[in-house]
Amino acid sequence: MNSTNDPILLRDDRADGLTTLTLNRPSQFNSLSKDMLTAIQTELTAIAASESVRVVVLAGAGKAFCAGHDLKEMRANHSKEFMQALFSQCAELMLTITRMPQPVIARVHGIATAAGCQLVSMCDLAVAADVAKFAVSGINVGLFCSTPAVGLARNLGRKAALEMLLTGEFIDALEAKQKGLVNRVVPADALDAEIERLAGSILGKSAVAIRMGKGMFYKQLEMGLDEAYAYAGEVMACNMMSEDAGEGIDAFMQKRKPDYKGR
Amino acid sequence: MNSTNDPILLRDDRADGLTTLTLNRPSQFNSLSKDMLTAIQTELTAIAASESVRVVVLAGAGKAFCAGHDLKEMRANHSKEFMQALFSQCAELMLTITRMPQPVIARVHGIATAAGCQLVSMCDLAVAADVAKFAVSGINVGLFCSTPAVGLARNLGRKAALEMLLTGEFIDALEAKQKGLVNRVVPADALDAEIERLAGSILGKSAVAIRMGKGMFYKQLEMGLDEAYAYAGEVMACNMMSEDAGEGIDAFMQKRKPDYKGR
Amino acid sequence: MNSTNDPILLRDDRADGLTTLTLNRPSQFNSLSKDMLTAIQTELTAIAASESVRVVVLAGAGKAFCAGHDLKEMRANHSKEFMQALFSQCAELMLTITRMPQPVIARVHGIATAAGCQLVSMCDLAVAADVAKFAVSGINVGLFCSTPAVGLARNLGRKAALEMLLTGEFIDALEAKQKGLVNRVVPADALDAEIERLAGSILGKSAVAIRMGKGMFYKQLEMGLDEAYAYAGEVMACNMMSEDAGEGIDAFMQKRKPDYKGR
Repeated sequence: MNSTNDPILLRDDRADGLTTLTLNRPSQFNSLSKDMLTAIQTELTAIAASESVRVVVLAGAGKAFCAGHDLKEMRANHSKEFMQALFSQCAELMLTITRMPQPVIARVHGIATAAGCQLVSMCDLAVAADVAKFAVSGINVGLFCSTPAVGLARNLGRKAALEMLLTGEFIDALEAKQKGLVNRVVPADALDAEIERLAGSILGKSAVAIRMGKGMFYKQLEMGLDEAYAYAGEVMACNMMSEDAGEGIDAFMQKRKPDYKGR
Repeated sequence: MNSTNDPILLRDDRADGLTTLTLNRPSQFNSLSKDMLTAIQTELTAIAASESVRVVVLAGAGKAFCAGHDLKEMRANHSKEFMQALFSQCAELMLTITRMPQPVIARVHGIATAAGCQLVSMCDLAVAADVAKFAVSGINVGLFCSTPAVGLARNLGRKAALEMLLTGEFIDALEAKQKGLVNRVVPADALDAEIERLAGSILGKSAVAIRMGKGMFYKQLEMGLDEAYAYAGEVMACNMMSEDAGEGIDAFMQKRKPDYKGR
Repeated sequence: MNSTNDPILLRDDRADGLTTLTLNRPSQFNSLSKDMLTAIQTELTAIAASESVRVVVLAGAGKAFCAGHDLKEMRANHSKEFMQALFSQCAELMLTITRMPQPVIARVHGIATAAGCQLVSMCDLAVAADVAKFAVSGINVGLFCSTPAVGLARNLGRKAALEMLLTGEFIDALEAKQKGLVNRVVPADALDAEIERLAGSILGKSAVAIRMGKGMFYKQLEMGLDEAYAYAGEVMACNMMSEDAGEGIDAFMQKRKPDYKGR
């Protein structure tokens, strides 16, 4: 199915503002080689600057969602400089997801391990098929999943995160939901419909409100309570002065559908 | 039932130290107009300075617990200055709840949306009827619930909080409990008995220990582990030197009920 | 069974790297007297410097896991200086657990209250028997569990933590698991087998990777997202240059068991 000439990352743009990026190295379980990281970074950076893309779905082709870094490539480039550059590039990609204005939804249909599990943790939202499984399995090859731990520890409680990191063991989709790693779990054949429902709900909202809100959310998380309130209040006052908020409230009071302009 | 002459906030003080504040604008779903915010702030400030109030219950009259800000009032006062003042006043109220010495319990019998959901998140404890529902629904009118996000993100995991903020969808009481937004869920007709049980448990404790503990709890949350331990140890040593701790330990060792003086 | 000549702390070292420390004051429910704190501190400090110990299990003899501070001793030494020294010593012990290179697993077979519950919260992992119960019960004797709150609030959501602290009520093992205080709950007669399974999984890993990972985990928790990624990436690059990571990846690609040297 997948020849060496196929692009390693597929992009599908829909007219309604939904863009799907599909990791397309199924024979390698969509592992995050340097080329794959570069390809995802390039698309996310372009999407971040786009007015027409409103929601991003991150998916994987083949059996796995993403099996993490490319161990073969790492072993073949055994220098500290290579590793530093690799983890730095990977971190930049993860941070881009939280910094870009559009919500990013992970569509997890199969296993997500190591940096693949990290990818799920760093997406704003995640929907998993019930057959999906999650692990930070680096410890099984002598490599503690340190960068994945950053995302994981900000999704799960610390004991649950440490257990996964120290044992490398899998958790199933339902456990991942209970622990906070994914939002929703559905049967595999209902996965696309559920993604559609979740993305559709966000597509119906004001783009300017979503953009201001997402940016605000991650910033206030790192503030103390007083500072967070001062900052969030200022953002909300700005949001309230947007054309969309006026239209939204008017439409609500007039019991009609709002007609958002995204500004 | 509710005429325009009824006070918008009811206060009931019980001899045992339990004070109930009831939002009383049922026809407006107890929305947080400027006047309502001022009324609550005035009472909470007075209660904070009171020695006789030991536990506060925050309740709502009519069908809803609280439907958030008053959209009509906001739309009629469309200036950035008004919005900044409004969100600033609201933030001050929310912070007063965490700063006051008495524990505040939300009694959530019906819907709690937007700033109403924020109010639940900022109370120290919350008990909900099984029919209660929760949403941060500003996004449905083009206004991302930025200040509610501050409280919500400190109760729920970040993916669960973001899902509510981005979709505006309701969660029911049981989900709210699983996610950390409320402590207990009971059938509607058992709500008052459960509030009584929870408040009663706290009323039986030493007021000085509760006051020192609540203040300490929120402060240490914003510290690193080392600093938190140094601070908490100092508070606990002070608490140990209080008359009540001596009495409490003596009573425990003598297998009798303690007779606390609140100092 | 337990005479006054028995040591208050038992240490058992196994050839495979598993060391078990057993609090051995069963008649006092293993309460943390000054002598007990000193004994645990001495052993943990020695273990932290040991190359041969790979995983630590913390257990209790008799009916209780640990009932917290020794109230009798505290009441007999009623000065602020004594209290400050006591809480400072206790905090140092708790911080030693997170700072030492080896994972520490709490084996909770019975009640864990006050500083005993704190001990569970500060261990890296915890496995409980289904009959175990947890409370921060200081508030019942006029003493808010301030230092236990530090650990508890970093395991549980804030409303759940505050409820325990303000009411002093017990939660059972299953609730403790759902709330994040323990990792696994099993029938009492399966507790040792489950500890064996969990510890065994970690014993099979590279000691250098576990050590680097555990230290990194707690440090990055106190950083903002950007700083955490920069730091974790640097640690992971170092880990990747270890002999064990090379061996682990080679073994994985050659489909054989890795032979770790711990460096």
